[in-house]
This record gives sequence, C-alpha cells and structure tokens, in this order.
Amino acid sequence: MARPPRRLLLLTEGQLNIYDAKMAVAVIRYQPAQAAAVLDSTRAGEPLEEIIGVGQGIAIVASVADGLKYDPTGLLIGIAPAGGGLPESWRAIIRDAMEAGLDVISGLHTFLGDDAEFAGLADEHGVEIWDLRRVPENSPLATGRAASVPTLRVLTMGSDCCVGKMVTALELTAGARERGWDAEFVATGQIGMVVSGSGLVIDRVIADFCAGACEQLVLERARRQALFIEGQGSLIHPSYSGVTLSLLHGTAPQAIILCHEPGRETIQEHTVRIPPLARLVELHERTAGLIYPSRVVGLSLMCYRMTQAEAGLLMAQAERETGLPATDPLRFGVGPLLDRLEALL
Amino acid sequence: MARPPRRLLLLTEGQLNIYDAKMAVAVIRYQPAQAAAVLDSTRAGEPLEEIIGVGQGIAIVASVADGLKYDPTGLLIGIAPAGGGLPESWRAIIRDAMEAGLDVISGLHTFLGDDAEFAGLADEHGVEIWDLRRVPENSPLATGRAASVPTLRVLTMGSDCCVGKMVTALELTAGARERGWDAEFVATGQIGMVVSGSGLVIDRVIADFCAGACEQLVLERARRQALFIEGQGSLIHPSYSGVTLSLLHGTAPQAIILCHEPGRETIQEHTVRIPPLARLVELHERTAGLIYPSRVVGLSLMCYRMTQAEAGLLMAQAERETGLPATDPLRFGVGPLLDRLEALL
Repeated sequence: MARPPRRLLLLTEGQLNIYDAKMAVAVIRYQPAQAAAVLDSTRAGEPLEEIIGVGQGIAIVASVADGLKYDPTGLLIGIAPAGGGLPESWRAIIRDAMEAGLDVISGLHTFLGDDAEFAGLADEHGVEIWDLRRVPENSPLATGRAASVPTLRVLTMGSDCCVGKMVTALELTAGARERGWDAEFVATGQIGMVVSGSGLVIDRVIADFCAGACEQLVLERARRQALFIEGQGSLIHPSYSGVTLSLLHGTAPQAIILCHEPGRETIQEHTVRIPPLARLVELHERTAGLIYPSRVVGLSLMCYRMTQAEAGLLMAQAERETGLPATDPLRFGVGPLLDRLEALL
Repeated sequence: MARPPRRLLLLTEGQLNIYDAKMAVAVIRYQPAQAAAVLDSTRAGEPLEEIIGVGQGIAIVASVADGLKYDPTGLLIGIAPAGGGLPESWRAIIRDAMEAGLDVISGLHTFLGDDAEFAGLADEHGVEIWDLRRVPENSPLATGRAASVPTLRVLTMGSDCCVGKMVTALELTAGARERGWDAEFVATGQIGMVVSGSGLVIDRVIADFCAGACEQLVLERARRQALFIEGQGSLIHPSYSGVTLSLLHGTAPQAIILCHEPGRETIQEHTVRIPPLARLVELHERTAGLIYPSRVVGLSLMCYRMTQAEAGLLMAQAERETGLPATDPLRFGVGPLLDRLEALL
C-alpha cells in the first residue's frame, strides 16, 4: 500500500468545518507540511485559520486548476460522511485532479479504485488511487490474546462520534514520546491512517472478524511500551455500538480515556441522550468488564466554543464529578492523563 | 436467490455431533422432509437418532455415491466451523456431489461460488451454488427506527454460542402460531436461513452496517404482530460481542429470552467465565438499555444431558434465582415464555 503523497490538496467542497471536514482538519493539524491547499469553492480566498482554528498560511482555492500552483502531488477527500458515500457533485473534481496528474486518497466506503471511470483515468494518467477503507479479505477471529500482552493499551472512547477520540490518542502519543516512552498511535479509522501512515479502518471489516482485526493491531505492536488506540463510534451510538464493542473487547485496554464534548446532550442525528459523566464512566467500565477489567483513568473534554476560563471551570467540575483527571488536550495538554497512565507502565 | 432444494445430503464428515453439525441437526429437526441422508464416512450405517437425538429413519452414508439412492437434489455443508473456512479434505466430496448433479448450499465464510474449480463445475454440470453468507454489498446505517415499529420484537440472546438461541426462536415462532399470533421467525445466521428460507447472515455484513442490516430485518417485517429474532454470539464472547451488540441495538427488542446451557461455566474455547443467571439478566438489560429499555422476560435452558427430573429441578431453581419463567423448549415447550410475552402483544 502506498504511503500518502507529501503534498495534498484537501477537498472539503461546501463542508469546511471541524465536524464534516475532520479528515482535512486532522491533516492540517498533525501533518501541516503535507497540506498544500484546501479546495472549497464556497470559501475560496478566506483565511483558513478563522474557519477551523488551525492552518494559518494555507490557502483555500476554488478549483483543482487554482490549487496546482501550490505543487500538490495528490488530492485527499477531506470529509468522512456518514455511510461513506461519494457526493455525486465531487466526481468532476476528482476527474480534474487525476487529469492533472494527482494521486487520489479516499476514506469513503465507496471504493474509487473500483469505479470504472476513475480506474481508467488512473491508468491513463499514471496516478494512484489509495482507498483507505480497503481491508484484508480475511482477518482471524479474536482469541482474547490482546489481554495477555504486557504492552500498556490505552483506548480512547467517547460519548458520541466527533468528540476527540483520535485527537486525544494523537496528543497522548506525542506527549508520551516527549516523556521518553516507546509509544505508538494505533489508527483505527481512515483519518488516523492518513496522519500516521498505518493502521486499519476497522469499521470496514466483516462484523464477525472485527474484534479479531482489532486484536491483530495490538498483537502486531506487542513490543511497544505503550499503545494509544484511536477509538471509534460510541457504546451508546445506535449505528456503531457494535464496532465500538468489538474494538473494546478486541484490544482489551488496561486504561480507557473517555472523550466528550461538554454541552452535547444527545447523540448527533439521534435522540439517544448522553448520560452524565460519572454514569458514562461506570457504563464503559461495566461493558469492558464483560470480558476484561478495563478502567477509565481520565477524561478528555473538547471545549471548542468556550473561553479559557470557562473551560478551566468545566475541567474542575468534571474532576469533582468523577474523581478523574480531566483536560482539553488542545488547550491544556495531556499531562494530567499521562501522569495517571505512568503508574500503569 | 434460490430456495434450498427439497432433498439434501447433509455433509458432516467426522463432525457428527450436536455442536459441530448444528446446521445438519437443525435441518433434521425442523425440515426433516428435506433431509435425504447424512454423509459421514466415520459413522456410516450407525443409527442417527442415537448420535444426535433426532433423525430416526434417516440413513448415514459413507460417500456421495452411496447417498444417491436417497434421491438428493443438493449437498448441504452441514457444519458451521469457527471462522467459517472449508476443511481442505471436503473439496473432493463437494466435487463428487457437483459431478453427480447436486446443487451445493454452504454457510461458510469462504464462498464456494468464488472458487474457480467449483464455479467451473457448476457451469459444467448445470448445478447451483448457494452461498448463504453472501450479503448485499450495501446496507444502510442503523437509524434507530426499529424501536418505533409497533411489532413485538423478541430477541433470543445467550451466555455463549451453541446454547439454543436459534432453536428457542424457532420453537417460540411455532408455539406463537399455534396460539394464532401472526408471528415470523427472523433468521440471522446461515442455519436459520436454510430452515426458514429467508433472513440474512448478519455476521458477514461489514461492521459499520451490521446494526443497520439488523434494523432492516425488522423494518421489512414491521406489519407482523410478533417477530422472533434469532440471536447471535454473546455479549460476553471475545470474538463476537460486537455482532451481538449490533443485533441487540439494531433490532431494539422489547423482550429478550436469555438462553444458556446449565453447567457450562466458561465461554467455549475461551477463559471468560459465564456469570450466574441473575447477573446475566442484569448485564443484558443494562447493555440493551444503553440505547433502548429491553427487558429479559424469560429463560431458555437447554439441558441436553440431564434426566427429566433433574431438568425440572433446574428450571425451578432458575425461576427462584431470577424471578423469571424458565423452560427447556425441547423438553417442556415454550408455553411459559409465550404466556409472559402475550402481555406485551
């Protein structure tokens, strides 16, 4: 499988916000050197940093042609829509990119490489299509062996989708390395894969083998001191709870970091209510404990729209409610979480 | 998709017992008219009923050639091995069957129809291959809508694999129909599909869409008065818990019948301990309740190796422990469970 090209045109057409354009935002935050420009005709010329909070100096362009002056080598589909389909209107943009000699990287469920037109264009123009969601045909069944490797396994889990599970795992990995730990980020979704260069899109695995594929991610990295495993979905999400449980039971983490966006009261696009933090902690430990006695050891609370003072007060309140260290990794760092995890090394 | 042929040679080669040959045993029990003969060279000529408790008068033969005198129209792969692969030694038997003009029905993960040799033989001899595990390429994501249909949704769940989830759902369906309910059995695995002629192998669906596929099984049958949905795996099974949770949250049953084999203390082939019944009831209701407030309303306890008196005592004890009606469906019928469910109609 090809490594992502170094200079990416990040396609977010009409969806340039931190939720819908998670993929693009993650590349800008974690691999800024790879971000050539953002392609979004609805925001062309606007200052990127004011829209998504990061990306100062990265241009927003209106078309592939406009983007070429930033020397891209590839086009990255910068959104991760529910269900993973390809918006029909994006076909022309992808076509333009391939005709301009750009590789295409996609995390959509619809494989671009299986599309006759795109496959033909790739041949014709000598470019590559990297479908991040393509997984091995055959994974083994889970055996429960992840529980017995000595590696510290830390899984980020969340109250919902888009509450910082990947960001928290990435920040923990970076912080742990700064402390000298032999730590690795384990990507379980397409965005994490682009950012880290390895991993597996676990929600694409056949359900019967999903826990087994998660277990393999741990076993293959069993010589590391610590793994920070990117969580997926939520145990209380009607669409994804099964994937979340496969990941939890397949990786058998000693430690869970629980992620939440304060103020969010129900699961996005659903009516399921998100319980209070202390109850969330309890239900995660109970559900993990069906197989392995994982413990929630800290909270990651993304406070996108708050002042620093408001966020600080909220952390203190969450700590009182749960007895656990709480932080917003992007504002306050992950020190309090790593302090707690250090005892488990 | 083709309906199963009427007269099946049931291949169990070397694995003729009620656990490994679940598929064959289910056909013999629920569609005896379809059972032409059992093919197992290690038990040929022995009385079938003494080995598996059912099937009086059905012959065990040593080869496809020997089986032809019972006028089969198809060969059914009669086992459901963990992981779903094809034992290499069975290739010759399948080849013999196709050369003799028999269709082949398989619930293995390995699709026989994708095998070049078998596909060629099917063409050459004009026979059909029905891979039960082949599922639609695209399922929708779960929306949570199953919870809002008025149909009574009853899901059988279990402490482990092979504890009677399918049998209980089949017996409940038959019993409900006798009482005049407009009831349907909903198959979620390959054996249930062969027996009932419809359904979906949910563990073969891509993990992201597994709950959605389960939800569809309910929505497509929303005009029925009652659905008896075949459970899969177990919430405490390290390999399958994610599939089990997708099925639970996707179908949002009002009622759960909890299945268990008394005396089994750990998950088969794993070290996970099975908790006491009252605790099992609680953890199922709690895990369901993450999304929808399902209730366990009865117990199905398969007492394969007990006397009638021992089984009776065990039911009484389980009822005392949990406050729920308990039965062994094959010994005592499902009346006590249907009495309880009747109140929910």
